[in-house]
Amino acid sequence: MKKFFFLLLLIAGFWSCRQQENTVSEGMSETAVVVQDPLPSWNDGASKSAIIAFVEKVTTEGNPSFVPVQDRIATFDNDGTLWSEQPMYFQLAFAIDRVKGMAPDHPEWSNKQPFKALLEGDMETVLSEGEAGLIKLVMASHSGMTEEEFKQSVMDWLKTARHPKTNQAYTSMVYQPMLELLEYLRANDFKTFIVSGGGIDFMRPWTEMVYGIPPYQVIGSSIKSEFDYNEGNPVLRKLPEINFIDDKEGKPVGINQHIGKKPIFAAGNSDGDLQMLQYTSSNTKGAFMLYVHHTDADREWAYDRESHIGKLDKGLDQATANGWTVVDMAEEWKVIYPYEMN
Amino acid sequence: MKKFFFLLLLIAGFWSCRQQENTVSEGMSETAVVVQDPLPSWNDGASKSAIIAFVEKVTTEGNPSFVPVQDRIATFDNDGTLWSEQPMYFQLAFAIDRVKGMAPDHPEWSNKQPFKALLEGDMETVLSEGEAGLIKLVMASHSGMTEEEFKQSVMDWLKTARHPKTNQAYTSMVYQPMLELLEYLRANDFKTFIVSGGGIDFMRPWTEMVYGIPPYQVIGSSIKSEFDYNEGNPVLRKLPEINFIDDKEGKPVGINQHIGKKPIFAAGNSDGDLQMLQYTSSNTKGAFMLYVHHTDADREWAYDRESHIGKLDKGLDQATANGWTVVDMAEEWKVIYPYEMN
Repeated sequence: MKKFFFLLLLIAGFWSCRQQENTVSEGMSETAVVVQDPLPSWNDGASKSAIIAFVEKVTTEGNPSFVPVQDRIATFDNDGTLWSEQPMYFQLAFAIDRVKGMAPDHPEWSNKQPFKALLEGDMETVLSEGEAGLIKLVMASHSGMTEEEFKQSVMDWLKTARHPKTNQAYTSMVYQPMLELLEYLRANDFKTFIVSGGGIDFMRPWTEMVYGIPPYQVIGSSIKSEFDYNEGNPVLRKLPEINFIDDKEGKPVGINQHIGKKPIFAAGNSDGDLQMLQYTSSNTKGAFMLYVHHTDADREWAYDRESHIGKLDKGLDQATANGWTVVDMAEEWKVIYPYEMN
Repeated sequence: MKKFFFLLLLIAGFWSCRQQENTVSEGMSETAVVVQDPLPSWNDGASKSAIIAFVEKVTTEGNPSFVPVQDRIATFDNDGTLWSEQPMYFQLAFAIDRVKGMAPDHPEWSNKQPFKALLEGDMETVLSEGEAGLIKLVMASHSGMTEEEFKQSVMDWLKTARHPKTNQAYTSMVYQPMLELLEYLRANDFKTFIVSGGGIDFMRPWTEMVYGIPPYQVIGSSIKSEFDYNEGNPVLRKLPEINFIDDKEGKPVGINQHIGKKPIFAAGNSDGDLQMLQYTSSNTKGAFMLYVHHTDADREWAYDRESHIGKLDKGLDQATANGWTVVDMAEEWKVIYPYEMN
């Protein structure tokens, strides 16, 4: 009964907000918030209302948009969607430290891009190679060890590495509003997956702790690995060969390969996520597409159509044309990072 | 308290069975069965006792072998482990029907093995090409359509196809004792995965209904697919190119790629599963390795070291040497298929 009353309040608030943006509806939403606000770090507004309305309708039996639990699949990009990605992908910062450490054993890198530029500290040239180039760089620097050794190197790096602007641990620079969204969806029996262009083995050691997303719900780019019986102590060795690039057209392919179901909810922040959102939007059960728009130069970064990293151009046009939800970080998020709440 | 008493009974039964095989312990186990038998289609014996003892110890807090819920990963081969695989892999029966249907559009098949043999009904030659050959055949006959269309073709085929020996639907020829084992593990907070040499897209349409295993917990061999925006109606098209062979050394690779955690429980029936069992046995948390041994020529089939399909030779030696559990189907399973219980 309480839930029904809350739902009524939300529908009323949602409807009034969109139709009139009057203060009465704002007041009603505030009342609802006091009772039980699933997204406390989101300001009331179009995005929050749309998210809640979608979740309520797909989880309400009898609603024509009801979706059974087993089909409630939600996919999230990682870089720029769940954590920051400026001034460079965080995995690139990890790769730089590793490449520097490995360089003495790889003299050929001094004449090969993007390694040459990276070792010379010429980040502009590194970035100009685009995302595929970055992924190659990252992948090449991640091979030549076992899966266990690589996992350990990621955990070791995360313990000490600090972001150049905030001086925070990288895993502290996740978005509080998105943590709440993940939790809200899971509380409504969604399965939450990461579908990232980033390395699958770079993310898995910490996604369960940071996002509550276990390794088997993480999809990403990968290099090949091979089984070595190793005289009775079996290991998987990481090879310097790209296995899969989970970006752009690769994202729907990765989703099909790992999940085998079409999502009903997908969130991204760049043109690299566009195909995932297009694929999701074709779900005949109905679906929710969300773009995080980086508009906050003060608290985070502001970038879209012209950015080397996280370029959002075609995606922004298509989101507008199709009525997808575009989250204005500056306007709609009360806080960016969890540590701001302390 | 009741659970503790039941546990005592089981331990007593287990111990007595192994030490004396006396009728008193059998009687005690029978009593326990009446109270709560998680594996009612398994005869009391070494395999059943070992499974229950393992599950009890990894789920009992305070036990030195306790394993936290998030690490309770169990992987199962499919063909010959969860359902029958004779006189040919069931997917091959599907492929034969498809190849025959597609043959008019592929005149080149009449001079190309194993297509030629298949179209001529020469199954001996088809099988002599080995598992990799079969997988190629299956994969090649599964391309040239969208994922949705392929899924529909599998579901349509399953509705009408019948096994040549039993005249049962193929999905009825799953092993009742293994269904109980899957359910028992899940009831103890294990995540159950399929890790099969069979096609991932062939299994996913029905594994949730038949085994209770959702598509995102199914790992298998695959062909590549590509995203096609298709003028606003996005689809994934299946390409005639092998993506991944999930067999032998491929199984640990597939497990790492999809799950990202090492299992603590693995079950198979052939040398194709040996590397998965070796990999699982290297889990420092401890692990349980199980081979289903096809010993029942009357109710199912009897085959191992010399079989074209499901050859179990090196695996049987290694299981014996390492004390892995080898299930004697004829002796240890009360029933084979669920329909025998009607």
